[in-house]
Amino acid sequence: MDVSQQRLRTDIETNATFGSTESETGHGRTVLVGTEANRAARDRFVDRSKEADLSVEVDAVGNIAATWTPPSADPDAAPVAVGSHLDSVPEGGIFDGPLGVYGALEAVRGLQEEGVEPARPITVVCFTEEEGTCFGGGMLGSAVATGQRGVDDALALTDGEGTTLEDALTGIGYRGEGRLDASAWDAFLELHVEQDTRLERADVPVGIVTTITGISQSTARVVGEANHAGATPMDERRDALAAASEFVLELERAGRDHALAGENTAVATVGGCDVRPNATNVVPGEVELGVDVRDVDYETMTAILERAEQSLGRIGDERSVETSFALELELEPAPMSDRCQRAFEAGASEADVEALSMHSGAAHDAMRVARVTDAGMIFAPSRDGISHNPREWTDWEDCATATRVLAGALAELSSE
Amino acid sequence: MDVSQQRLRTDIETNATFGSTESETGHGRTVLVGTEANRAARDRFVDRSKEADLSVEVDAVGNIAATWTPPSADPDAAPVAVGSHLDSVPEGGIFDGPLGVYGALEAVRGLQEEGVEPARPITVVCFTEEEGTCFGGGMLGSAVATGQRGVDDALALTDGEGTTLEDALTGIGYRGEGRLDASAWDAFLELHVEQDTRLERADVPVGIVTTITGISQSTARVVGEANHAGATPMDERRDALAAASEFVLELERAGRDHALAGENTAVATVGGCDVRPNATNVVPGEVELGVDVRDVDYETMTAILERAEQSLGRIGDERSVETSFALELELEPAPMSDRCQRAFEAGASEADVEALSMHSGAAHDAMRVARVTDAGMIFAPSRDGISHNPREWTDWEDCATATRVLAGALAELSSE
Repeated sequence: MDVSQQRLRTDIETNATFGSTESETGHGRTVLVGTEANRAARDRFVDRSKEADLSVEVDAVGNIAATWTPPSADPDAAPVAVGSHLDSVPEGGIFDGPLGVYGALEAVRGLQEEGVEPARPITVVCFTEEEGTCFGGGMLGSAVATGQRGVDDALALTDGEGTTLEDALTGIGYRGEGRLDASAWDAFLELHVEQDTRLERADVPVGIVTTITGISQSTARVVGEANHAGATPMDERRDALAAASEFVLELERAGRDHALAGENTAVATVGGCDVRPNATNVVPGEVELGVDVRDVDYETMTAILERAEQSLGRIGDERSVETSFALELELEPAPMSDRCQRAFEAGASEADVEALSMHSGAAHDAMRVARVTDAGMIFAPSRDGISHNPREWTDWEDCATATRVLAGALAELSSE
Repeated sequence: MDVSQQRLRTDIETNATFGSTESETGHGRTVLVGTEANRAARDRFVDRSKEADLSVEVDAVGNIAATWTPPSADPDAAPVAVGSHLDSVPEGGIFDGPLGVYGALEAVRGLQEEGVEPARPITVVCFTEEEGTCFGGGMLGSAVATGQRGVDDALALTDGEGTTLEDALTGIGYRGEGRLDASAWDAFLELHVEQDTRLERADVPVGIVTTITGISQSTARVVGEANHAGATPMDERRDALAAASEFVLELERAGRDHALAGENTAVATVGGCDVRPNATNVVPGEVELGVDVRDVDYETMTAILERAEQSLGRIGDERSVETSFALELELEPAPMSDRCQRAFEAGASEADVEALSMHSGAAHDAMRVARVTDAGMIFAPSRDGISHNPREWTDWEDCATATRVLAGALAELSSE
């Protein structure tokens, strides 16, 4: 199955001009839901899909489905879906998400040009708010498409400035109608960058995912007392940032201990930290921390979270600050379907490409979809494992190779 | 010397409506230089000064000088100046600054109504950007008025959004002309809330300041590597927030050790913490910390700073993150003049008020002015010592008592 590396590259590079952030370290993007950059990225994907004779639908939460129904296909057959997302974290990379969306579109164009005659429609999907930067805890569009979150509930979510998802989507013209229903799909495939160094170290161009790690995200909150940094003696302080700092280190220790005790799959991160009032001359009064804990083993995730919560309580007692720990999102580890893994193996074999079986340490929309239909994922290598960063990079050759394997798997799955 | 408690209260309460922030814990204010709230606060002070027959001048950096030159005074004599500031920290209190400005104006009105005949003009001063929240490191207006910072240098300072002080002041109509010259003053007095609990615990209504503590402010910066929180194993991270957290705790420890070793006057604070990219699912790549170190003993300040810088370097080595430590502001401890302290004692005695001699743990404009002319400060009690917080509170009776002592000291200093 052949695909055009140049066309794929042009798509990803053009997409990277939306929300572009240039820095010394590389070319990044900030594409948050409801921004002009998000509108532009969506518009172009819709245009490119129409140019490839796909029919485009947008659901109530802005999920985009672009379907190819060739004459060979039974239009009523359950489609094979394939895709990813176009939103990014702040100052994220240009491949995380777009490779999966434009790789899927390129795979369809490859099938078309090769004269493949699928028995089922193929739907290229772009999910809304995969990163969870503005609304909800992540993978929001796929949560709605799989019935794990209600449409009205999702539309009422607000970002940091109080804007609802509904208003954000309406503002860019992507508050559509109805609900994309993933349970009606025959299968779902997702191509993504690995965001780790295992493929690079093994010098293998494609990874076939066996299980997607479980993920939990929580908010740890510390409330002390804001006070004058000069006039408040050390022994009379209730410093929220000092307490939060202890917690950051305790959580890191818990993650390290469990990673060492297992197969180095457990991770624990404090990625977000907001301090109030956040002025050099004021003892911090409040701190809110965004906590992310993951493992392929659910018991381990639970153990890390329990230890984190206990540490926070102890720190609160010792420092006379109030603390709270609230779970915002929890997804159990998600095994990928055997059928999809076999389809990828067939695609790799056909393309004469070596592939490595591996778990995913990152959460992906395929994780949600795996709960309602067969799902599979493949990875392309990430240079130095760097992602969520302008330095994120995947060689164009590797992008094309993974897209070839994806096209082969799509042909396989849609053939009957 | 009598003053009107009701008039003073009305002035402070009206001033508190500008940039007002209501919360469960109290009535606060956010009055940052160049905002509408800042314009409104300044406008009202100018109006109230004119109503009291003071002539108002605004200098190039927005310092306001409102001068009363009664017939009894030699208009060419060096004035006695008195005042404080109207800007606040984010979500600060309603007394920190305004009590000193409106207390000064009320003291002048008291002298006028008592028929006091000063031999010198009296100038009520409102300094620009005392808190240093937006521009420079704090006490900016008094730095310019004392020649410690040039006018052009100050006007070119930029806030977090790249706006210059000049544009911020022009925008609210307070980019005046010339430079207020504090060295031409016979003396300068400042009334302020204590921001500590010493007066409250001693049950004494007025504190006469002996020395203002030295202050240094620095920026500690940590640069690690932003990366995917799920896909980056614990042993491959260069987490800037975990490194910064170690530093926060090391600095706290250094402050505590030196406070214990001395007379509990040393303080060390990380008040500001900015994380990039600051998303739950991204290992933090960069952290910038605002560090504040103070003591009445300069050697101790230096020792704490050296220890902080060493800790930061060690943390950087251990965690393979880049670190830097930059001193932004340093002011040595400032003794208040004997003449001004005696004038306050006379004022307290005349008002039949007990007064306590004490150091100031907070920096104040009087600290800058002390380098070019005689300066003195008095404190009114702060409930529970809380300041830079909406819960900041000083009883109206205590505000009036301190203003009475201020008026007595003004009468004393301006009598010859």
